[in-house]
Amino acid sequence: MEFAEHIKTANVENVVLTQQLEASLKGTLCVTGHHLLLFGRDGDSTAQLLLLLRNIDAVEKSVENLMEFSGLRLSAWSQRDRAIESSGTITVKCKDLRILQLDIPGMEECLNVASSIEALSSLDTVTDLYPFYYRPSHLSLKDPWGLSLPVQDFAELSAQTGRWRLSEVNRDYSVCLSYPPAVIVPQTVDDNTLRKVARFRQGGRFPVLCYYHRPNNMVIMRSSQPLQGANRKRSKEDESLLHAVIDGLPQGYIIDTRSAQLAQQARVIGGGFESKANYSHWKRLHHNLERGKPLLEAFVKLVEACSDQWQGVDRWLSRLESSRWLSHVQSTLSTAGLLAQCVEREGCPVLVHGSEGTDTTLLLTTLAQLILDPRCRTLPGFLALLEREWVLAGHPFQQRYAHSAYSHTRPRQEAPVFLLLLDCVWQLQRQFPLAMAFSEPLLLHLAQEVYASNFGTFLCNSDAERCCQAVKEKTHCLFQFLLRPEEREHFANPLYQPTELAIWPSVYPACIQLWHGLFFRWTYSTKYLQEALEEMQSLLTRSTNQGCRPDWTELGAERCLAPAPVAD
Amino acid sequence: MEFAEHIKTANVENVVLTQQLEASLKGTLCVTGHHLLLFGRDGDSTAQLLLLLRNIDAVEKSVENLMEFSGLRLSAWSQRDRAIESSGTITVKCKDLRILQLDIPGMEECLNVASSIEALSSLDTVTDLYPFYYRPSHLSLKDPWGLSLPVQDFAELSAQTGRWRLSEVNRDYSVCLSYPPAVIVPQTVDDNTLRKVARFRQGGRFPVLCYYHRPNNMVIMRSSQPLQGANRKRSKEDESLLHAVIDGLPQGYIIDTRSAQLAQQARVIGGGFESKANYSHWKRLHHNLERGKPLLEAFVKLVEACSDQWQGVDRWLSRLESSRWLSHVQSTLSTAGLLAQCVEREGCPVLVHGSEGTDTTLLLTTLAQLILDPRCRTLPGFLALLEREWVLAGHPFQQRYAHSAYSHTRPRQEAPVFLLLLDCVWQLQRQFPLAMAFSEPLLLHLAQEVYASNFGTFLCNSDAERCCQAVKEKTHCLFQFLLRPEEREHFANPLYQPTELAIWPSVYPACIQLWHGLFFRWTYSTKYLQEALEEMQSLLTRSTNQGCRPDWTELGAERCLAPAPVAD
Repeated sequence: MEFAEHIKTANVENVVLTQQLEASLKGTLCVTGHHLLLFGRDGDSTAQLLLLLRNIDAVEKSVENLMEFSGLRLSAWSQRDRAIESSGTITVKCKDLRILQLDIPGMEECLNVASSIEALSSLDTVTDLYPFYYRPSHLSLKDPWGLSLPVQDFAELSAQTGRWRLSEVNRDYSVCLSYPPAVIVPQTVDDNTLRKVARFRQGGRFPVLCYYHRPNNMVIMRSSQPLQGANRKRSKEDESLLHAVIDGLPQGYIIDTRSAQLAQQARVIGGGFESKANYSHWKRLHHNLERGKPLLEAFVKLVEACSDQWQGVDRWLSRLESSRWLSHVQSTLSTAGLLAQCVEREGCPVLVHGSEGTDTTLLLTTLAQLILDPRCRTLPGFLALLEREWVLAGHPFQQRYAHSAYSHTRPRQEAPVFLLLLDCVWQLQRQFPLAMAFSEPLLLHLAQEVYASNFGTFLCNSDAERCCQAVKEKTHCLFQFLLRPEEREHFANPLYQPTELAIWPSVYPACIQLWHGLFFRWTYSTKYLQEALEEMQSLLTRSTNQGCRPDWTELGAERCLAPAPVAD
Repeated sequence: MEFAEHIKTANVENVVLTQQLEASLKGTLCVTGHHLLLFGRDGDSTAQLLLLLRNIDAVEKSVENLMEFSGLRLSAWSQRDRAIESSGTITVKCKDLRILQLDIPGMEECLNVASSIEALSSLDTVTDLYPFYYRPSHLSLKDPWGLSLPVQDFAELSAQTGRWRLSEVNRDYSVCLSYPPAVIVPQTVDDNTLRKVARFRQGGRFPVLCYYHRPNNMVIMRSSQPLQGANRKRSKEDESLLHAVIDGLPQGYIIDTRSAQLAQQARVIGGGFESKANYSHWKRLHHNLERGKPLLEAFVKLVEACSDQWQGVDRWLSRLESSRWLSHVQSTLSTAGLLAQCVEREGCPVLVHGSEGTDTTLLLTTLAQLILDPRCRTLPGFLALLEREWVLAGHPFQQRYAHSAYSHTRPRQEAPVFLLLLDCVWQLQRQFPLAMAFSEPLLLHLAQEVYASNFGTFLCNSDAERCCQAVKEKTHCLFQFLLRPEEREHFANPLYQPTELAIWPSVYPACIQLWHGLFFRWTYSTKYLQEALEEMQSLLTRSTNQGCRPDWTELGAERCLAPAPVAD
């Protein structure tokens, strides 16, 4: 497309940029096809502001014609004076929660800039987005794309057990549009059976393996809901697939991320659950995790509450509570802990699903792996986990993160599920400061990237779509980029001490804390806190290099996990 | 007194001690005049539990006579078997919020132990308390008592200015019962005038200097309310004293820790405020800080909320809010910030008082000194500050801290004002991790000491009472003890980097956080957090000793302080 048609005014001089925690800046504002830039007045060619237009969630403009207030002098002024005297202010609210104010001389210029931002920040066509234009000299489109190779993952698995196989039944995305071409399934289930199971699961998402727990050979699988419907349809193939997973074990668990009531209700519109009668070895646990609209509303309410700095503590706590965001964090972490307990302590295989299996399901499987598997707590391990469980597993990024907390349009599909994941990971980091190799800045960076990025990783809704748009050929891979040595350093946790132990989160209410780093990132200064932490970190890094770092005591016994009720 | 008369059973064997976060212990329980001890069964002479009886806030006993449930076998049993089979449980709730459970074989023993605890934990006579009996070999009663010497403080002051003098008008406590013998007052005001002013101020607390701000020669003074009464009495002497403080300056501020309405109402019962007409150079600012019952209720509610670990986050936040404790913290810090601003930024002298001038007044003067004066942020400086502003200034410790959150008796005079102070200091520590030489463990230790101590520092309600009871001759001094090298180490902040700058607290609602260290000290484990912090600290200490510690950037510009409204 021609971006130029949306840019009536490309440059405006003497624009004043104001944002919290920063000194005001005056300079030349430039609007390009993908960026908003501000250059200082001293001829310095480094942009003082470089903002992806895609990052902009809402634009508010207020135009003030100063002459209206000085009618007496009006007649003496030339037309040119008039234009200069009028001015406008644009408030730019970003998806990463930053708020900028631009004071623009000239009413027309102001309106032009605002309409450019409005048009260019909400481009519909994926291939018009910046990742398709981003060509830095230090990256090549020939660099590898993605981290996890199903074939390699499977090779590791088969070294442990022969009970699973790699199926390419979905190689052309015809069996399940939101699955990747290769998935891991029980050895005894053939592709033909898989095709039939897929027809019995919403969106074709038949049960696949997502985690193999080496210490006791138990597994976590995920799927979508069975399409039982009002007349309680069955699928022998579906039942046999799950029976193959049991393979002589006394019992497996199905964690359904809907309440029992919601699962019942789903039958009316063709969905349903695994009835005890037909899946005799599986015990169903219902743990309702909110998704979609309630989650978005929680996020919006919390952001609103955070933006009001002059309220009393009482009012603040009341708004924090009524947003319910921390409740979502608590129930997610608590259910993920339950899932991990089923695997590690009960020694049972577990299948996780809600309805579509693309949101809360992935939250649980990701967090359970972080809790159980030390390999997921390294930087490459964590990024590969995100790639497997979110990018390849078909989390609809494009639908979920087109807008953030400020937008006035709220499409039905919007929901900050990935932010909820990052928040839960942050809670784990806070509770176990030594256990993860990556630090808070990585999580903050990902929270930004998911809304607006130079990279193609979070584009589209599924691997099939990415394939269709040639994302892997025409954009760069975020995860590969983050693993470059110069980036790694910035995201490393210098306190990291790997432990083989599971890290059981505390879910006591007071242990669940607000993620200030995310919600107050642009609002108030944590400068002194940051300074102290950074100095501690740099000191620790330096000491390690100098060999004067002491032995760390290993993480001791496992932590108390508040037992979640077994069924609701 | 004879403690023995309260001890019917001094030793019980096979007592099981249970407490959260600790393994159960079985051993011999001993009750002495001042302690509850538990010795393990392996003949080890080190007590596994050593608890000051004074620390016990409430005792709950439940006796179970097992035979009642086994009537059939009753007749076959001897009297002796009977006694053994019955047993009881004592739940001991401590003033430092710890909760212990003791399972005691023998009903009679159980009841005896409980009644001993009840009697001995609430001794009324000061000289019966443990500090009068504590005689460790490493301390001598001849050691110096107290830290701050008014004469020395005054010598420092007179090196700066000649406008103040040391008055010994109160040398026999006859002018003000709650003041120390020596106070600092304006040079031009003679002792006779002071005597008259004292008669015009509640409890004789005439305005005295408590802080001299060297950078601009401004001062903080404190007093109690003027005894204006319903017929608006005046005191020329009081007016002249305050006029002497103004000494040509354009204006001073009076920060009244009551709302304007409460100050008006106080006239009915003989109190009042400084009217504009008679104190023309002083501008009154009313900032209502709760004291007494509301503060105690907030504390009790918060402790109750904290003890319920199984509630959801929503319920928890709602209870945290309704306790109002964090609101008290916020308004205290905010008003202390305002006081410091008046001195540092407005360049004005300030007088602080509420009604009695022994509680909220001291909160403000103490916090303002911490904010403004780097010398108060060292360990000796902080302890001397507490001694000057709380111990010598007549905060009624005995009345305020006889009970804590669990006691069923709530005398009118009880209020956790000192805990509120420590909480505010903790908020400052959290916001400025480099600025103070002492760390959280010191604050936690003081929070415990104020309720039950081996030392005499927090005994009695005033210097006069301490003098009368010969506290300084017959007990040891806590502050002197804390300054011994072996103790200092434990309480030092290894990140400490002194700064000359004021540390302006953020009072945004989300910046005021719950002090987990105090309120969850005995309830849930912050082991991993603690381990990480301790390791960081020990590493930093070691690195400093090895000389590989980097230069710290000094604390930069002052922080944003939320401006408090000028008058309410």
